[in-house]
Parts: sequence; structure tokens; C-alpha cells
Amino acid sequence: MAQKLRIIPLGGLGEIGKNMTVYEYGRNMIVVDCGVMFPESDMYGIDLVLPDYNYVIQNQDRLRGIVLTHAHMDHIAALPYLLRHVKAPIYGTPLTLGLVERQLREKNVLDRAALLPLTQAQPVQLGPFRVTPFAVAHSIPDSVGFVIDTPVGTVVHTGDYKLDETPAGGYKTDLDTLQALTQGGVLAMLGDSTNADRPGRTPTERVVAETIDRLLAEAGNQRVIIATFSSLLARLQEIMRLAHKYGRKVALTGRSLIENVNLARELGYLDVPEGLLVDVEAHIPPSKMLILSTGSQGEPRSALNQMANDLHRSLKIGPGDLIIISGGTIPGNEETVGGMLNKLFERGANVIYGPMAQVHVSGHGSRDELRAMIETVKPRYLIPAHGEARHLYLHAQLAAEAGMPDDHVFVLRDGAQWITDGENAWTEESIAIDEVLVDGRLIGEIGEIVMRDRRRLSQDGFIVALIPIDADKRLIGEPQIVSRGFVYLNGADDLLASARQEIKRQYRRGERNVQRALEDFFYRETQLRPVVLPQYVQV
Amino acid sequence: MAQKLRIIPLGGLGEIGKNMTVYEYGRNMIVVDCGVMFPESDMYGIDLVLPDYNYVIQNQDRLRGIVLTHAHMDHIAALPYLLRHVKAPIYGTPLTLGLVERQLREKNVLDRAALLPLTQAQPVQLGPFRVTPFAVAHSIPDSVGFVIDTPVGTVVHTGDYKLDETPAGGYKTDLDTLQALTQGGVLAMLGDSTNADRPGRTPTERVVAETIDRLLAEAGNQRVIIATFSSLLARLQEIMRLAHKYGRKVALTGRSLIENVNLARELGYLDVPEGLLVDVEAHIPPSKMLILSTGSQGEPRSALNQMANDLHRSLKIGPGDLIIISGGTIPGNEETVGGMLNKLFERGANVIYGPMAQVHVSGHGSRDELRAMIETVKPRYLIPAHGEARHLYLHAQLAAEAGMPDDHVFVLRDGAQWITDGENAWTEESIAIDEVLVDGRLIGEIGEIVMRDRRRLSQDGFIVALIPIDADKRLIGEPQIVSRGFVYLNGADDLLASARQEIKRQYRRGERNVQRALEDFFYRETQLRPVVLPQYVQV
Repeated sequence: MAQKLRIIPLGGLGEIGKNMTVYEYGRNMIVVDCGVMFPESDMYGIDLVLPDYNYVIQNQDRLRGIVLTHAHMDHIAALPYLLRHVKAPIYGTPLTLGLVERQLREKNVLDRAALLPLTQAQPVQLGPFRVTPFAVAHSIPDSVGFVIDTPVGTVVHTGDYKLDETPAGGYKTDLDTLQALTQGGVLAMLGDSTNADRPGRTPTERVVAETIDRLLAEAGNQRVIIATFSSLLARLQEIMRLAHKYGRKVALTGRSLIENVNLARELGYLDVPEGLLVDVEAHIPPSKMLILSTGSQGEPRSALNQMANDLHRSLKIGPGDLIIISGGTIPGNEETVGGMLNKLFERGANVIYGPMAQVHVSGHGSRDELRAMIETVKPRYLIPAHGEARHLYLHAQLAAEAGMPDDHVFVLRDGAQWITDGENAWTEESIAIDEVLVDGRLIGEIGEIVMRDRRRLSQDGFIVALIPIDADKRLIGEPQIVSRGFVYLNGADDLLASARQEIKRQYRRGERNVQRALEDFFYRETQLRPVVLPQYVQV
Repeated sequence: MAQKLRIIPLGGLGEIGKNMTVYEYGRNMIVVDCGVMFPESDMYGIDLVLPDYNYVIQNQDRLRGIVLTHAHMDHIAALPYLLRHVKAPIYGTPLTLGLVERQLREKNVLDRAALLPLTQAQPVQLGPFRVTPFAVAHSIPDSVGFVIDTPVGTVVHTGDYKLDETPAGGYKTDLDTLQALTQGGVLAMLGDSTNADRPGRTPTERVVAETIDRLLAEAGNQRVIIATFSSLLARLQEIMRLAHKYGRKVALTGRSLIENVNLARELGYLDVPEGLLVDVEAHIPPSKMLILSTGSQGEPRSALNQMANDLHRSLKIGPGDLIIISGGTIPGNEETVGGMLNKLFERGANVIYGPMAQVHVSGHGSRDELRAMIETVKPRYLIPAHGEARHLYLHAQLAAEAGMPDDHVFVLRDGAQWITDGENAWTEESIAIDEVLVDGRLIGEIGEIVMRDRRRLSQDGFIVALIPIDADKRLIGEPQIVSRGFVYLNGADDLLASARQEIKRQYRRGERNVQRALEDFFYRETQLRPVVLPQYVQV
């Protein structure tokens, strides 16, 4: 019987984050990417979300290798967790491997994986899979998509991309190579859907350089502070070039930024003019200084947020500071970023952000680019990837507009099994997939129930009622109440005294549903619904 | 001694919401607006935030009246709370009063206030204040700003506005009247700063009508559902006109929408063609149906969100439904709205939202409009109002660009006392202002400490350790642990057993700081920091 190709997205189809896809053919498996997702606001207290990679662990005898498209956290940062369970060679471009190596070393799992370079000139054969990268324009250098040749046909896995013709020091998406590599036709494409709800084209990175050029030209005597993502190395390169042009020295603040700049310089991805970089405490007139900083998302411990709160070790913000936020606000971060901006203005700084000037562009292509990709690759089947449900459906709509038959476009979700024999394609029953929540040292142990409790506690706090009873379960003595997050206890003596009376009244009536009675009592009195836990203490 | 004019913003300067401003002259006070703010995401469990109107309560003998610019919640919805403490005549345009009346009736305080009409032809003299409204374009009809004549000069209080020349059934901002009313010169202006970070002009409401026209023309056999704000009555009017044009009946779903449409029809603000409105359950072909719905913000109980969750009483979403979200996402709601959109797509609907088509425009003017207002009014002093700190500062920057001297622009915060004798202006020590949090029936009783506890509970839950002791405070028996929101207890037997051991070990060592010991223990084991409360039970 002829073998079939099986594609199982383990993450990234239904959310933006935790990208991970399994390709299987017979008893051979490769994995593309292994990223984390940052928690949504209803994931109380959660640090990270991992893809559910149980399937890979269970079938690790088949695993021929892990290939990585680029070094963003949502594509690589679950590797240290997976490698506790699985040993596998990891393939990527040089910068990607450099950033992965640092991560694995920090988490003490570097010995669990061989890191092997993967370039267009150097494709890799992993069992029946031949994986050839092609360059794509994205917001971190050395990003690639993959042409994956399999016995039943060729699959294009785009990874994250935009079609930027003028990426200002960055890379272009190499459609010529992609076409050359896929001359035999493409069976299927997994395509980035992130911006499937944006019409037209994503603006080119060059406009950011042009805006910053103009702002620096007009900056005069102001000290300039630019906050951006530490992985936007091409933009950092452009900013350094512009600083040099305007006679400003560059200082770095923020751990991830300093580490990334160092690594990128070592690996030859950043060309820094001699003498340009100075220490953040160097005695240089403000008009000759440009500070690159982390914190474009208002992250609590980031350098810019520390400046906003006047907690930065060396930098004080005041009048005469021009701060440029060169990073789009990730949905969910609006309030945090807004709060930081308010504080910076209150310190007297002039801040340029958001709609005020084009100081950031997305790294993902918009609808016209997705359409161009479909028309370039002409896949027989399309699987929209890398998006929440709405992005996947809108990508599918676009494919229909581009003339693809409806039944050749598969909107899948994590855990789906998409199968093809090279001619037809279908899905089989999905494998069971969970969100794997990381909370402190706990991985996957925090589930729905704990989340629901935290949600309720966050709304109205809790009451533990200690009820002294004797061996016959009779109330003997005064109940005590322990509470946090409900009302301010010092001002609530009457309320709590009444609650104790309520407990006693329940006992006198012979009722034993103290929990229900207290819940009703507190709701009646306050219209709040704290978590109520009666606790019997046998005295 | 000549009297001075004193302006005290009680809310709205430092946040978008809870707008309320006091004007005082001698022993006379008027209040402009009295709105609420919706809680930010770090206000755990809070329902509403009120302005701190203690100053008004304390000085209510001086209060001559409350004047309202328009009927949005952030300008009127704190009235029912204030009126529990204060009696005062309330002035507003007819629609504003209609909506206020409904609110006061619902909250049983209608008898606490006389509601009196205020129109341009009918200005009002309140002690030394003569208040004349002028029409402004905004996202609810009958919005006005005020020209407030005082013995020391004229103040312009813009309220919320944009300069929309083609408001598609709505009102224009009446700059001619404003100029006529201020020919004697303007001492000060309090101006809307909401969009001070947006360059250019806010698009006109007409583009929304044009977009919806086009979408309806292309809708074919699809059932059309449009979700928008129930206060956008001019837009509702346009949508009804377009529905009529395309031969569609209109059904309404969502309580606030139905109530507002009824009230607006009664008051003559909506002209609905005979026979256009039908019941949402009417048997009408999808291609002849247009449903107006609440829920553009993904509010949990809104009609559209109920459809997304298949919980709507009468409407089921499926293929063939075209849903248009005609309301911008308010910052902080992105995840909620995104989640609702995902579900609508998953049900097969075609959804048009956000950047996909211009189906919403802001009701606030952008920088060019704020500048035009400054240049029209030519105030001696400017107080940027209605904004977070960043908006106020950017409005001030704009005034500088328009040629105002720096010391004539006052960036104030809630509680500031701005004083002028008609010539000079200065600030005196701010009055103490708190955020007044409403949580269930509790008003102002929930403060920092409870908020902090809720935050911590939301992150890592709590542990109450019941420790049985004798009269000499010796441990006698087995400690018990009560916990929620920390770990899933059924899977944490070992952890909790170890915690009990830890308590006993502390006692054996003669240590009594059980709280600290348990906090350390849990952090060591889990890297979580639950709220830990040891509770001694004397047995």
C-alpha cells in the first residue's frame, strides 16, 4: 500500500503563537517550529503557553529532525521544554541557531540537541523529506520558508513573511528561488494568515527608516531614545546607520537588546561603525546621543518602563528627551503601553508613537501579498496557518477569490490530521490537543478548574469560615472568618459580625448548607460573589 | 475684592471617562457633566468608576445647576449616584434629557432633580454663569459644547466633538454660532483631547454610510447583521435608510438598542419608514432582512456575543450571514472582540470588521480639527480636557504649534484648582481626589488593599493553613490546608502533605513565622506566590 503524507498542526492554527507542525510519512516524522504563546488576559497568572507536543513524544522513534523557520519566540521558545522529553537534530539558518543555542544553554538542555545549519545551498534530507529553505522578508533576519519535497509531492511551508521589495537592510522574500524550487508543482501550502484581515500590502520597512531619518533630522538638541523589539536587527542596523549619519553615538539598554546585538555582531548580522556604541552612562551631550531601548510593549521590567517609573539605573527622563516607540502595540497590551506613555509625557518627554508617525510596520504580509503568494506557488491545496480562526477563514476566502476550489482549501485547527496521497486530500479524526499552561515550575498542571477559581478570586476574593463543631457536628463556639480580596476588613466589622450571626442562625435552624447560606448572605448585602469555603474544625 | 473664576476638573483629565468639571465664582458653582468610567483591566472585579464628587457634596449650597454636553455614559451616568447626595436642576438638550430621565427613573432618583431643557435659543443663567450651548458633531445626536459667560470672561467648554462637514444625518459643529457667541473674546477653553495623537482629520461619518451602502449593494442573498453602538442614532438612521433602499426589513436585537430606538423615535430623532421595522423572529427571507444588534465590543451579554455562542433566543448564525461590526474596538477590548469574531467565523458567517472596510469612524476630532478649534476660538488660556495624560500633553503641544504661549496652556489633572481673575491665570493646591470604585453595592469602599489582594489571588490563588494549637500555643494535631486557585488539589497530594510537614517542622524548630516558611516552601516547590494565611485554631 502506498504511503500517505500526514500533516498535523500542533499549534498556531487557532491562535497567534505556539507554532508547531508535524509532517509524517510512513514511520518518519519531521517537526517545523516549536514556539510558545504568551498568555491571554483570561489566563490568570500564567507565564507561557506551550503547544501540546505529546504526539511527538509518543512517536519520537519516528522523529528525524526539527526544522526552524526563524528565531522568534513563537517559533522556537518551546524547544527547551520539548527537549526534556525528546532528542533530535535541529536545523536552522545561522542566526536562528545562534539564538536557539543561547536559549538552550540558558535552560541547560544544549546537550539534548545537535544544532545543524540549513541553507538554500545546503538542503537537508530527513528520511523521505527533503527540506530546502528559501529566504523571506520578516521582522528578524535569516527568516526562511521551506520547500518540503515528499514522496507524494511538494509542500511549501511559508513561515512568517511579507513581500517587502525595499526591506531597508533586511531580506527580500525570494520568490524566484521559490518558483525554481517548485517547478514540479506544489501539492500543498501552509501559509501565514496573520494579516489576512488587512487589505492591500503591508508598508515596507523602508518607510520606518525614512520616518526615523526625518525625526532625527528634526531632533535638534533633544536626546533621542528609540524603543523597539530586540529581534528587529535590520531596523537596529538602520537606526545605527542613521545615528552615525547625524553624528550621534548609540547606547543600548535592556538585557535582550544587548544580548541580541552582541550575538548579531558575532555572527556578522550587524555592522556597527567603529566607536559608534558607547555606554549608557557615557558623558555625551544629549544632542549627540541616541539610546536604543527595550520596552515598546510597556513590559514591566523593560528598560523604557523603568525610565517611565524613574527606576532606571542610569537614565532619567525629562524635558529635552525625544522618545520614539518603534514597535506596534500587540493586541492586549494597549493599556500597559498607554500607561507607560502617560508617565513618559508626565516626566516632560516628547513621545512619538502609534498613529503619530509611521515608526513601525508589521512583519506579516497583508491580503495582496497573501494572494501574490498563492498565485506564485499555485498550490493544489491550501492550509491557512499562523492565525486565530478569523485570520484562517479570511485567508481561505482570499484563496477562493484567487480561484481555488473551496474543497481544496482546508481551514484546520490544532490537532487536525490532514492527509493526502498526492492526488486527493482529506482529514481524519483530530488528535486530542490541550493548551499546556506554564505557571512557575508547573507545566501542564494548571487547568480549567484552577483558572476558573483564579478568575472568581480576582473578581470578588474569598471567605473561609472556620466553624467550631463537636463530635456530633454541633456548633460549639464562635465562628471565625478569614478573607482577602473581598472587602476591606478593617471597615467591615458589621458585615462580618452579621455573617457570623448568619452561620449561627443556620445552625439553630438545623440547616447545614452553610456555604449556600453565606453566599446568599454576602450577595444580598454586597451583590458580590466571593468564593465561600466553610471549614469545620472539630474541637 | 474682585471675585475670581475657579475651574476644578473632578474627572476626565488623566483618563478617558468620568468627565465632570466644577466652575465656581464666589459662592456659586455649576457642574458640567457627571459621567462614569469603565474599569481598566487592573481594576479587578470593579463594575464602574465614579468621579470623586465630594467637593460638590460639601459645597452643595453653592450648586446652581448641572449642565450636560451629551448623553454618553462617560458624561451622564454618575448622575444617579451624585443625586443621592445632592439636589440640583439638570440642564441638557432634549435627547440628552430623555436618556438621563430613563437612567434616573431606573435608579429611582428621578424625584431628586428637575430636568430642564437647554437650547441655543434658550440659554440659562445660573447665578453669575450664563450657559449657552452650541451644536457639535459627535457620535450621539444633540451633542453640544458650552459658551459659559462669567463676570471675568467667557469660557468655551467644547465637550466631545469633531468637525464633520458631512455627518450623514448627524449634526455639524456650529463654528459660526460659536464665533458669534464669543465675539467679546474667550478667556479660556477646555477642549476635547481624545484624538490628540491622531494626525490629520477624523474621517467623516459619511464614509461609513457609503461603505455600508456598498456592502449592502454587494450583499446579495446574505442576511445582513450590523452591530454598532446603540447611541449612534444618526448612523442607525442612515442604516435604516439604506435598508429601505435595498428592500430589506430591519429587526432590532439587544436591550439598549431597542430602548434607544424607541426613545429616539418618541423624541423625533429617528424617522423610520412605515413598515420597515419587523420583529427579529419575523418570517422574512434572509436576503430581505437586516438585523441591527448590540455587541460591537464583544460584551458578554450582548446580542451579537450571544449569537457567537449560539445562545441567542431567536437568531442562529451560519453560512449566508454577513456580519458588519460598525464600531471601533475600544482599547482593552481587543481580545474579547477578537474571540467573538473567531466564533462568528467558525459558525460560517462572513464578518467585516476593523481594517477590512471603513465601517466605523471616531466621534472625536483629530489634530487638524483641534487646531482649527483653537484658531476659531482663540482662547487666551487653554486647558486640554477629556484625555489620558498623553492626550492632554499632545493637545498642549498642538496649542504651542498654533502659536499659544507655553504659560497660557495648562495641563491639569483631576482635582487641580485653576484660577483666573480675567487677566492672569494660575493654579492653587489641588484638592484631594480619589478614584471611587463601584463594586456591586459597594461604592468607594473597595480600595488599594483589596485591589492588590485580588491581583495576587488572580495570579497564584491562596492557601489557608489551619493550625491546631493548645492554650500554650503548642501544635496539637495535624494542620489542615484550604486552598483555591493555586494548584489543582486532586493532583497535589504530595505537595500539600509536604506543606503540612513543613508546618510541623517549623514548630519542632520553635520557629513561629509559619507564614513566611510556607511562602518560601511553596515558592521553592512551584515558583508561585499564593497568598498564605496561617490560621490558629485553639482546640
